[in-house]
Amino acid sequence: MTSMMDLIHELWFLRRDIVSDGFDQALNRLAEEIPMRIHTYPSGEACWTWRVPEKWTCHTAYLETLGGQRLLDYADHPLHAVSYSLPFEGEVSREELLRHLHVHPRQPEAIPFVFKYYKRDWGLCASQVLHDSLNDPAYRVVIRTSFEAGALKVGEVVIPGESEQSFVLVAHLCHPAMVNDDLSGVVVGLEVARELLAGPPRRFTYRLLILPETIGSVAYLSHNEGLIPELHGGLFLEMLGNDAPHALQGSFQPESQVDRCFNSCFSSLDPVGYTGAYRTIIDNDERQFNAPGVRVPMLSLSRVETPKSSGRPPYPEYHSSLDTPAIVSSQRLEASKKVVLGLIDAWERNQYVVNNFKGEVFASGYGIWVDYRLNPEGHRRLFEIMERCDGERTVAELALELGISFQSVWEVVATLLDKNLVRLSPQPQPTSSR
Amino acid sequence: MTSMMDLIHELWFLRRDIVSDGFDQALNRLAEEIPMRIHTYPSGEACWTWRVPEKWTCHTAYLETLGGQRLLDYADHPLHAVSYSLPFEGEVSREELLRHLHVHPRQPEAIPFVFKYYKRDWGLCASQVLHDSLNDPAYRVVIRTSFEAGALKVGEVVIPGESEQSFVLVAHLCHPAMVNDDLSGVVVGLEVARELLAGPPRRFTYRLLILPETIGSVAYLSHNEGLIPELHGGLFLEMLGNDAPHALQGSFQPESQVDRCFNSCFSSLDPVGYTGAYRTIIDNDERQFNAPGVRVPMLSLSRVETPKSSGRPPYPEYHSSLDTPAIVSSQRLEASKKVVLGLIDAWERNQYVVNNFKGEVFASGYGIWVDYRLNPEGHRRLFEIMERCDGERTVAELALELGISFQSVWEVVATLLDKNLVRLSPQPQPTSSR
Amino acid sequence: MTSMMDLIHELWFLRRDIVSDGFDQALNRLAEEIPMRIHTYPSGEACWTWRVPEKWTCHTAYLETLGGQRLLDYADHPLHAVSYSLPFEGEVSREELLRHLHVHPRQPEAIPFVFKYYKRDWGLCASQVLHDSLNDPAYRVVIRTSFEAGALKVGEVVIPGESEQSFVLVAHLCHPAMVNDDLSGVVVGLEVARELLAGPPRRFTYRLLILPETIGSVAYLSHNEGLIPELHGGLFLEMLGNDAPHALQGSFQPESQVDRCFNSCFSSLDPVGYTGAYRTIIDNDERQFNAPGVRVPMLSLSRVETPKSSGRPPYPEYHSSLDTPAIVSSQRLEASKKVVLGLIDAWERNQYVVNNFKGEVFASGYGIWVDYRLNPEGHRRLFEIMERCDGERTVAELALELGISFQSVWEVVATLLDKNLVRLSPQPQPTSSR
Repeated sequence: MTSMMDLIHELWFLRRDIVSDGFDQALNRLAEEIPMRIHTYPSGEACWTWRVPEKWTCHTAYLETLGGQRLLDYADHPLHAVSYSLPFEGEVSREELLRHLHVHPRQPEAIPFVFKYYKRDWGLCASQVLHDSLNDPAYRVVIRTSFEAGALKVGEVVIPGESEQSFVLVAHLCHPAMVNDDLSGVVVGLEVARELLAGPPRRFTYRLLILPETIGSVAYLSHNEGLIPELHGGLFLEMLGNDAPHALQGSFQPESQVDRCFNSCFSSLDPVGYTGAYRTIIDNDERQFNAPGVRVPMLSLSRVETPKSSGRPPYPEYHSSLDTPAIVSSQRLEASKKVVLGLIDAWERNQYVVNNFKGEVFASGYGIWVDYRLNPEGHRRLFEIMERCDGERTVAELALELGISFQSVWEVVATLLDKNLVRLSPQPQPTSSR
Repeated sequence: MTSMMDLIHELWFLRRDIVSDGFDQALNRLAEEIPMRIHTYPSGEACWTWRVPEKWTCHTAYLETLGGQRLLDYADHPLHAVSYSLPFEGEVSREELLRHLHVHPRQPEAIPFVFKYYKRDWGLCASQVLHDSLNDPAYRVVIRTSFEAGALKVGEVVIPGESEQSFVLVAHLCHPAMVNDDLSGVVVGLEVARELLAGPPRRFTYRLLILPETIGSVAYLSHNEGLIPELHGGLFLEMLGNDAPHALQGSFQPESQVDRCFNSCFSSLDPVGYTGAYRTIIDNDERQFNAPGVRVPMLSLSRVETPKSSGRPPYPEYHSSLDTPAIVSSQRLEASKKVVLGLIDAWERNQYVVNNFKGEVFASGYGIWVDYRLNPEGHRRLFEIMERCDGERTVAELALELGISFQSVWEVVATLLDKNLVRLSPQPQPTSSR
Repeated sequence: MTSMMDLIHELWFLRRDIVSDGFDQALNRLAEEIPMRIHTYPSGEACWTWRVPEKWTCHTAYLETLGGQRLLDYADHPLHAVSYSLPFEGEVSREELLRHLHVHPRQPEAIPFVFKYYKRDWGLCASQVLHDSLNDPAYRVVIRTSFEAGALKVGEVVIPGESEQSFVLVAHLCHPAMVNDDLSGVVVGLEVARELLAGPPRRFTYRLLILPETIGSVAYLSHNEGLIPELHGGLFLEMLGNDAPHALQGSFQPESQVDRCFNSCFSSLDPVGYTGAYRTIIDNDERQFNAPGVRVPMLSLSRVETPKSSGRPPYPEYHSSLDTPAIVSSQRLEASKKVVLGLIDAWERNQYVVNNFKGEVFASGYGIWVDYRLNPEGHRRLFEIMERCDGERTVAELALELGISFQSVWEVVATLLDKNLVRLSPQPQPTSSR
């Protein structure tokens, strides 16, 4: 088993455009690490309102002075060509060149990540520094790209559980030569899947999807419509290696059980983490899962310095050639893996708590009495939880109602389970007629 | 077709008491302008807890000094006699006279509008100025009125729509010799009805009712109980000519679709208009439609300087002889007509928006993409609306949820309809099982 | 019929431990005052998660110096022995004695009330003053108690009503030699039951339970499970003689009809009283009735200076030998009785108000018109209430919606009932389809 950082070093510089040989190469390499089914969707295939694009290959791309001095070259860095650039070859005026030469809005030294998957044009990318040095009246551009029938690939790792009901983890792999966005989410997802596979069976089936952003999710969902009702919740993973606190973004349905569960346990998993509503932190594939006709409540987890709602980029190196292995650390990837596993643990436990008892429990008779003189907080919590165990509230709902963490509630519920005073149920089981 | 102002000039000074020849004369004149069915309810007829009163006629009414000097005369102004005054003839002490002589609480020069339809007494009305000059020990009063079997009249203009489901416009006509309250609402209602008749068929049937206040509504509703379930919403019209902003008063059911719809589109129709809850702006016939056993959600539209909740009158000339054609303008009547038509347009459009698509729409493929770099607001709005098109929200509910206007939502929905990406439904059609 | 204060004087000093001859003696004496069924539950009997404890008798208990000087004696005051103390006899070091000698945390002159019903040990109770004077190296302790098979007793007074549906009043009797807590609640409950018995039949059956705290409620409920669905509400009574305002504590279900009803009428019954949420004022038997599997909405009424949420005791003499007849007054007991009867009156009246009318009522025709010029508040209230009489709101819900008292609403509803304009219904009867 290759470590997360080693996989990053091995795969990050690949030309992983959405439908491309580089993407396939990366996915195949990941499939060596874990049992994975690879779904293929041919170019042109209808996916709801979308179509799978052609495979794109960039053979050569460079910019030269008319004197033949090479100013930038795709061979040096995959970001120098706009992803899905049309081919172009010829002498262009400085003015025309600048209309097709993209720079990063904030990082003068970096090459930006620019893509034109559907509204196509030819284009190159350069640093602001290079851009500003272009003073010749004309330059020579060579972009040799080809568009041909290919197939979009979606890798799916299934960890079967006791039920067909599924929880889905999603990460995208299509950002060429960048690491935090998006390879970090892929390797954390992979490690989580490995741990789930190695552990005991879970209540839910888990599915990890590794795919090209947006079109990959649409392709998978539109070809697996029958599965959608089984998807009870999901989590999108991305930007998990940079030096920033975890941000948990809610789903479109903030009252869903998965939203309640994750929100009630998150602060215990990362005390400096923060939460935000749907679409306020960062947009990704969770949009497809939360969308009309699908409505799978999918949250997202990422490390984000400045949420989308601030109007600023999520981290300084975002969508640039500065997003390299140097900005991620194995400690942070490891910590993020633990947060994801912690969320999943809570999700597995988040059932309705049904009382086997009536009236108040004879606490001292069961040896669970907490002396209010020694531990007033613990005493109050025990009774506040017991009196709400009525088959109408999940563990997460108890936590939110009492304003305490999922984990604090679970501690008490585990004791009550141990004494056979309560049982868990995936469905509400009200024990009172009122 | 007579203009609104011409109709006002022609009808305003008529003695339009609730059941009277003057009321009939005005209603018959309006029936020449538009196809109208006139319902008649004979005096004494039971109307739920009410009874239709007798026809009232004032033949003569005046006040004289004992020396024969005439101080006020009904022949000069219909407001000089209390509406439904009992007859009386004789010499009265100054003290007794003042108990029956009504003045306006705020306008010393004006004759007030006073009515005693059910708790009857004899009475005259004068200006405060005249009142204060009465220093003789006794005066002579002559009031010759008659009460006889007659019939209350309700004019109904029906504009048939694609469905029997109806929307009802109401205005009262029973305020003698006054204009803003109430003739202005009548003529605006008439113009709206004319435009609806001239236009294409609408989803709803529209009914304009012109009637005497309160008892007219009760008479109509109690004799058309079978129609009540078909009345899906309504709007009362009054005080639409004076120089004040529009005020939209909600119905008893603030969560009704018509309340949501009108509230979400109103500020675009009159940017200086304001809204208020049921019974906080002005009380009129909407009380009968909103009442128990009826519960038609009826809002009201008027131009009101100071809402009822302020404890002050809605405009200075209210219920006085100063409420003449001079205080209304054809521009304001015209503007109010446009507001009413704008509300109706929204009401017609306010259906559930049902997605024909699943997942996110391939916006650029449909040519509806909005570039977030050029128009971030438009981009965000497009996606925020699309992701809520799920058959569970009306246009108005989308607007209220997003905090934008009905019209802004409609603009996007119209584009989506044009691309066949959504359809409209009068009923909810949820497209997701969650 | 013995007065409340006379009963207190007669019964207060009895050794009314939870299962004891003193408890039985007190209950039997109360049964002479009112028809009462006495339920018996033998020691060892299972009651849901609990078991009925043995009968406990303290024959002798005292503390002596080794020289034979008696320092405290159970014969002088029942609180000198811990309730349910194990027997013990022997010489003990000062250090060991102090581990078993309990004092009051705030009242240096008082003997505290200490009980160890389930976690047993031997123990004596003394004033802080005596405790601080104990400087000998050793003392002699004699505690002769016996534990034997007995029976827990629950007294039940039933006042049959028109329906089997019941309202339950609960008071506990098991606090030996104390008055405000708990005898005051018992005698107020008894007087309320007497008045109900003497009056006309009520809609509900009323049940007064007099029992040992907690285990008495659990014993009764667990042996009358079939009755639980008939218990529509309840009120626990305690601390009703001391000089403090009434505090009404809500049930676990703050939206229940009984919570709404009591909350809307309480401030008229005691203008200086206050209310608090479940478990914020004082904990007692209402916990058993509100518990999972039971969920009878039971509020509690007491006179409390400082609610539990303040972290301070409810009154200075709480759980001490200072809780004597001197701190309660017959005037306050009488006033509390009136509050309880006032709550019950409201509860009896709290039905859905169903309109026999449609539209607005012809108020002057029915002689119920309120002139808005003379009484604007009364006018507004009349119409605000009438327009909400639609079979969907109880009297209490009308009061809460309008922000006025139950009694103010009832005054109008009574007038409408008198005019046959409305009727009352125990169930919702919506009269409009919308």
